[in-house]
Amino acid sequence: MAPPEQDALRVPEPAAIERARARIAPHVLRTPIVASTALDAIAGATLVFKCENLQRVGAFKARGACNAVFSLDDATAARGVVTHSSGNHGAALAYAAQRRGIPAHVVMPDNSPRAKQDNVRRYGATVHFCDANVAAREAVCADVVARTAGVLIHPFDNEHVIAGQGTAALELLEDAPELDALVTPVGGGGLLSGTAIAAHGVRRGIKVYGAEPAEAGDAAAGFHAGRMMPPPVTRTIADGLRSGTSPRTFAAMRAHVSDIATCSEAGIVRAMRLMWEHLKLTAEPSSAVPLACLLEGTLALRGARVGVIVTGGNVDLDRLPWQT
Amino acid sequence: MAPPEQDALRVPEPAAIERARARIAPHVLRTPIVASTALDAIAGATLVFKCENLQRVGAFKARGACNAVFSLDDATAARGVVTHSSGNHGAALAYAAQRRGIPAHVVMPDNSPRAKQDNVRRYGATVHFCDANVAAREAVCADVVARTAGVLIHPFDNEHVIAGQGTAALELLEDAPELDALVTPVGGGGLLSGTAIAAHGVRRGIKVYGAEPAEAGDAAAGFHAGRMMPPPVTRTIADGLRSGTSPRTFAAMRAHVSDIATCSEAGIVRAMRLMWEHLKLTAEPSSAVPLACLLEGTLALRGARVGVIVTGGNVDLDRLPWQT
Repeated sequence: MAPPEQDALRVPEPAAIERARARIAPHVLRTPIVASTALDAIAGATLVFKCENLQRVGAFKARGACNAVFSLDDATAARGVVTHSSGNHGAALAYAAQRRGIPAHVVMPDNSPRAKQDNVRRYGATVHFCDANVAAREAVCADVVARTAGVLIHPFDNEHVIAGQGTAALELLEDAPELDALVTPVGGGGLLSGTAIAAHGVRRGIKVYGAEPAEAGDAAAGFHAGRMMPPPVTRTIADGLRSGTSPRTFAAMRAHVSDIATCSEAGIVRAMRLMWEHLKLTAEPSSAVPLACLLEGTLALRGARVGVIVTGGNVDLDRLPWQT
Repeated sequence: MAPPEQDALRVPEPAAIERARARIAPHVLRTPIVASTALDAIAGATLVFKCENLQRVGAFKARGACNAVFSLDDATAARGVVTHSSGNHGAALAYAAQRRGIPAHVVMPDNSPRAKQDNVRRYGATVHFCDANVAAREAVCADVVARTAGVLIHPFDNEHVIAGQGTAALELLEDAPELDALVTPVGGGGLLSGTAIAAHGVRRGIKVYGAEPAEAGDAAAGFHAGRMMPPPVTRTIADGLRSGTSPRTFAAMRAHVSDIATCSEAGIVRAMRLMWEHLKLTAEPSSAVPLACLLEGTLALRGARVGVIVTGGNVDLDRLPWQT
């Protein structure tokens, strides 16, 4: 067995991402790609969007959660799974557990919007409330793990989750094999790590980039400084990207990613609206961060063929950010 | 040559729809299908949605316009094409003409929203303004035809347009062969006619239904009365469905369609929001009319496997109908 400090940095090999793909195939959708000549003209590049907003639970997170849950042996799985994400990972873990027929426990702040609670309960998970701070969240989470003996499935600091997230890139590169580059948003770095490892397993020369709100720019700053930065204190509109990275995802990004760019909040809103208008998709703010970086020129990919992962479509339809 | 009264009722055979499919294949997208278990639970049926909002120009109209334009012989095509639709058909005809490299002329009321003008000009068409009434529109259209010798391509009363619209059903039944029924919105009846003929060419036993706003319920009333009704006077939110039928489309619907149901305006808004929420698609109000009929029970298809054509995604993102 590897020593713990090794374990904490372990990421999946490309072959593990291929195995993840087969493992989760019965439980996730092969999502389509879309494109728009009007949007290409605005961006000055040829863009192909992988529609993970059309994925189960409305986000790519279904891939990682299903791979983690279906990688557990039967005895371990029977004890159930636990997480503390109130966002798409929480719903994804609930979905994966329901597919396997095991209990799921999701810890969320007691001020979480009703819609987020419903997203988790829809798939039969038990919601545990905590005060809205990190210490309370970790205490409740530890208590749930202790009482249930369930397995904590971290939203990104987990090699099976990373392998699952990487499967979207495999499909994208099959459907659009001519791409020069891939871009994904960066929050904790699970998607970007998995995407980069998967893509380089298929084609060594392809460039993989991260895109991050400047308001939550810890991954970009850390990438350029060569050392991991503390988690951001941020209210970026891209609510899926408010977390920091982990040593595991940070090391993977340093090894496999060409650059991480940042964009403004106004740029995110503009890019999101353009995606709704031209792609006819409801993309959540986090999903618009790659396009925002392309439009603001912090990702200088004019003329290139670029694949973008549209990470999710879970938004409050009553309050759209371009309506103020 | 058939006598005129025959010509005016002529609709495509299934084989003509297969030929249309091959003819337009280089110019249109094979759109994906999507589904949502949450939406199925609400509707009490298994629903499969064909995403023509992701089609070129954001609507199925690209199919019919491309088939009509690419069915013209070279000498005729060189004179250009003309239409008077300011909606999706206008943009679709402009797109088709641009693909063929011929002129397109689109007559639209001088009070048309800027966005609709831009949708047509984007593809290089010439816009001709008229006063906002039927007589003025027809006069300007006749004048443009006389001056340019261009070919008038009607939005639905045209067998090549009908054949093109029917190609979406061929793809849908390939991707979801187990469907019991198909439902499309009804405006002029081109899509519904083409869908029904195409579907019955593939599988004689499948049921095909129309869905119409009660506020513009001329097709449903005519279908039940057995005689064509005059065009509706309506401000239904489903702005793509405000036109009446033609003898051609009316006869085709009577021959091939099982029923035409109607729904309320509030039902359209509710169904549209549910589609945005659960399918993660921007569907225009007309696209939500089939789901509204299913939810209001005017289409009694509980427990069935139903294919729904999502006709378009062109909406004003600044003013969504559930925000008042």
